[in-house]
Formats: sequence, structure tokens, C-alpha cells
Amino acid sequence: MEQNTLYPPFTIGVDLGGTNTVFAAVDSVGHILAKDSIPTKTPTIENWADLLAQRISAMIDTLRLDGQIDGIGIGAPCANSSTGCIEAATNLPWPSPIPLVNMMESRLGIHTVISNDANAAAIGEMTYGAAAGLRNFIVITLGTSVGGGIVCDGHLLSGTRGFAGEIGHITFPFASDRLCSCGRHGCLHTIASAEGICHTARKFLAISDAQSTLRDIPEKEMTPRKVYEAAKSGDLIAQDILDFTGRCLGKASAEFAAMTDPEAIILFGGVAKAADLLIPPMREAFNDTALFLYKDRVRFMHSKLDDADAAILGAASLPYM
Amino acid sequence: MEQNTLYPPFTIGVDLGGTNTVFAAVDSVGHILAKDSIPTKTPTIENWADLLAQRISAMIDTLRLDGQIDGIGIGAPCANSSTGCIEAATNLPWPSPIPLVNMMESRLGIHTVISNDANAAAIGEMTYGAAAGLRNFIVITLGTSVGGGIVCDGHLLSGTRGFAGEIGHITFPFASDRLCSCGRHGCLHTIASAEGICHTARKFLAISDAQSTLRDIPEKEMTPRKVYEAAKSGDLIAQDILDFTGRCLGKASAEFAAMTDPEAIILFGGVAKAADLLIPPMREAFNDTALFLYKDRVRFMHSKLDDADAAILGAASLPYM
Repeated sequence: MEQNTLYPPFTIGVDLGGTNTVFAAVDSVGHILAKDSIPTKTPTIENWADLLAQRISAMIDTLRLDGQIDGIGIGAPCANSSTGCIEAATNLPWPSPIPLVNMMESRLGIHTVISNDANAAAIGEMTYGAAAGLRNFIVITLGTSVGGGIVCDGHLLSGTRGFAGEIGHITFPFASDRLCSCGRHGCLHTIASAEGICHTARKFLAISDAQSTLRDIPEKEMTPRKVYEAAKSGDLIAQDILDFTGRCLGKASAEFAAMTDPEAIILFGGVAKAADLLIPPMREAFNDTALFLYKDRVRFMHSKLDDADAAILGAASLPYM
Repeated sequence: MEQNTLYPPFTIGVDLGGTNTVFAAVDSVGHILAKDSIPTKTPTIENWADLLAQRISAMIDTLRLDGQIDGIGIGAPCANSSTGCIEAATNLPWPSPIPLVNMMESRLGIHTVISNDANAAAIGEMTYGAAAGLRNFIVITLGTSVGGGIVCDGHLLSGTRGFAGEIGHITFPFASDRLCSCGRHGCLHTIASAEGICHTARKFLAISDAQSTLRDIPEKEMTPRKVYEAAKSGDLIAQDILDFTGRCLGKASAEFAAMTDPEAIILFGGVAKAADLLIPPMREAFNDTALFLYKDRVRFMHSKLDDADAAILGAASLPYM
């Protein structure tokens, strides 16, 4: 055990990724008691579920937490919390739909909840992170894709089929020239995803003659992290790229605010590591753009979940939904 | 009593307008038992509250419903359901904030709920109207202004200060040349409000040479109703105006859908009387524009609350929130 003082009850958080499935036992304030992983690429989903159940059982035994686990939360792509199934996930090795909740509950007899990664992030922030005590906020997940978890009046919004909060695919004039992987133009995803930031980098480097350390990076090796590091070292083009990204996020947030009147907007995920450079232009653009009702009323924050464990903590919080 | 069969429990619905305050006793399926009104323009808010309380008491006595009233619902501009106050309403004759819930509860001893008109419309549709049995839908109110009542997972969204659902002030490229009364450009309000439709009429008449009966109407006398009537009579420009309005509503709805994943979008209010001409282009534009997850998944409907009593029925449903 990594912590001296533990706060019951406990949950198991499972982060189901394309390559590995990482899981941990977590206490009620977000302390991780033990962590383990299994490969996701097993021949059948039954193999995977058997192995995961067996290793979770072993973890509970080792920690002497038998009967003290309040629930299992699984964060997974395309997870529908209302049906308990994974639906049409393209990056998992098994055919969909996958009745994940049933599979785990029948093996372990422990209440199980699944949700997509962005929703897990929102519940994680509310349970252990930056949104503790907040009843109205939006988590924007910035990574390979852009997603959202929206909490309004203390409830995580799910919607008819669990597809509420798909804010990466809300379209904006500032992206009208960018084709999204969904086949449409203008999605926030095309600006604020990892690839979106690399796209902006290519564009800004092409239209400017200014010196930039980013010019030394081969196009295929560009990453948001390299842009961020250059910006922190004083590179002006790199700073412009993140300033533009932040401003777009601020304008988008001004529209989101009119839907759910949030008190905070939280950046989460790999690309959000640049939050210290994204949030100031984001806040400014929000306050320049938003309806008077929301102006200067929304706090912009970086996730407070430990980067390495954020996805697991989000999943572990799902039973508290 | 207007109905033979009544379904308890009963509520009182109050529609607080700038000129008159209309109120009615309503049963649980939306039958109006009795209706009455008082002028809103009384010298003080205390006079108004005394008079309203007295007349509601008299109505309850006459109907012999003493002890059978489950609550009073008041639909009012700028009503904040969480504080129970009217905040900064510019079209009421008294200074804000007005602690309306306290004022009625102290006078009548009956549980009282207030909300803005768009939210009352949403709860009204869910309780007695087009959204009966639905847990995920958006009511778009079309009238002097454009508002929204959003129900997600069975909850009416309120937000930090009750300002969720201000969809009339979400901005879109199709309105980027239109200045809104809020001081910004591009709000849906500038297209789909009564004045928005008149604006479109002026514009479409100016850029076309085609014959139209709308040309006989002096600019100041143009109304959405006249545009609708001309369109129904076969006037092509009038049809184009409503087609454009409907298409804009459809594109806007495609973005709203990504926030809350609704199963239905319902048009409500005076301008929604043109729903039979607005909904077909709205549905088409929605399905052309929306992310694949929402395409062909959303029903578009006209309010099922009787026009004359829609506001009162919305208010009467608020105690069921």
C-alpha cells in the first residue's frame, strides 16, 4: 500500500485501452492502493474478462478488502452507461456490442459501471479532482481526440444513447477550412486535438518567415508536447500556435456555456499539459465572446488528477455517479 | 368546471406577463378547471401578491379543492428556480430581485416553484404535451425572443445560476451579419425570433424581383403570421423565408444535439404556429449537418399544448419538476 491513511469505501478503476487494460484499487479520496495490468489483445472477450476478473479478485484478496469494494468502474471507448455495453469501438480487438457490465458482475458479483473516457474524467474531477464540490462544470478532454464530460445540476449528462458531451464534434467558423475525421468540416477536434495542434503548427510555419526551433522538427515528428516545450523556451511561433488553440477553446466554451451555465471548465488529458499556456488566451477569448450572463463567471482550470493515473481515477469514480 | 373527468392531484399555474397575470387550476393531465387574471401593473409587488393570493384562494374555495393543491407554478421572465427570485426582469413594473416563492408561500402556505418561460414550456411538454414519456429533449421557444428548455436524462437543466438553455444566444455562421439585441453578432435569436423572420423577409424581398403579396405589407406591419399565411397561399418568397428559417434551426439543432443527445426537439410559442412549414426544412438540414451519431435519430415536433393555454400549462407543471 502506497498510503498510510486510507478512506473507505473502496472501488476498482479499470482503464480499458487498445493495448493494455490497467486497473487499480482506489479509496474514496483517490489514493491508489495497488495497480496492475493485463494485455487487452486476448483471443476472445471471454478470455479477457476471465483474466481481468481473476486478477481483480487476487488484488482484493491481497489487500484484504473482501466485502469492502463498493463497485467497479470501467472507462472505455464508446461505452454506453445506460445499456452497460461497449458499442462499435473500432480500436478494440473484439466485435461489438460487448455487454461489459453483465460480464464483470456475473464473474465478480460486484456492482459495475461503465462510461466513456471523457465522462469518467468528469466524474473523476468531481470525486477527487478540480471539480470537488462543483455541481456545474464541463471537462474538455484534449488528446488524440477531443471529448467532453458535462455535469449540470450535479448530474453527468448522458442523453438518449449516452452520446451527450460530444463537444469535439461541435463545429465553429474558426475551423471551417478543416476536414474532420468524422467527414464534416469545422469540428473543434480539428483544432484542439493533438493532430489539430500539429495542423496549426504546419500552417503557422508555412505562412511565416520567422525563425522557430519547430522548423527543425520533421513534419511527422511534430507533437503538441514539442510545441509546448518550444513555447516555454520563448519560441514565438510556438506561442502563437498555443495562443490560437486557447482562443478557439475559449470561443467554443462561450457557446457551451449557453447550454449548461457552468461555473468551471476543466482541461484534461495529454494535450492539457499545456494548460498554463492555453488557459490565459482561452479565458480572454471566452470573456470577449460570451453572452453577458456568463462573462467573468466561469473559472478555467487544469485537471487536478495525477497525469499518470488520471484515466484510472476517472474510472474508479464511476460507481459514485 | 370545464371537464367531466378530472385527475387529481391539482396545481395552480401562473403566467406572469408584462400586462396581465393569468392563472388557472389544472389537473394532473392538463385539464384546466378554472381560469382568471389580474393586472400585473399594480403600484407595488406587495399589492400584486396580495391580490393574486386572494384570487387564488377564492378559486380553490369555489372549486372545493382545499387541501388538494399540490403546488403553485409560476412562469416568469428571468425567474431563477434555485433562488426562488425574479432577477433583473426589465419588462415588469417592480424593482428586482423579487423573492416570489417566499411571497406566495407565506401568503398561501402552498409549495411554490418558479421558472422562466422556456423551462416552464419544457416541463409542460413533458407533463402534458409532446414530450410525455421522453427523458431527453429540447424545447425551442420561438416568439418575441428565442429561448430553450433542455431536459437531459429526465432532468430540466438549470445550471449555476439558472441560465442553462439560453440557446437563442448561441451564435452561428448563418447569422454572422446580424446584430443581436444582446450586442453580439450571429445569435440564433436574430434569425428565428419574430423580428428575425421579419428581417429575413425584408432581405429576401430586397434581393429578389419576384412577385409577392408580402410587398403589399408596410415594413412595420410585417409579422411572422403574415409570412406564414402568404406561404400557405403559395407565395414563393414567403415559402423561402420560412424554409431559410427552418434550415437555420436545423443546423443549430445539429450542434445542440452534440451537447445533450436528445431524442426530440420541440418547437413552442407564437412563431411555432408555422411549424408545418418550418419542420420539414429543419429536419432535412439537421440530418444533412449532424454528426453521424445523431443523424436520423431526432424527432422534430410541434408543441402539443393548446396555444391559448400553453404558458399557463407550462407553469402549472412546474411543481412536478
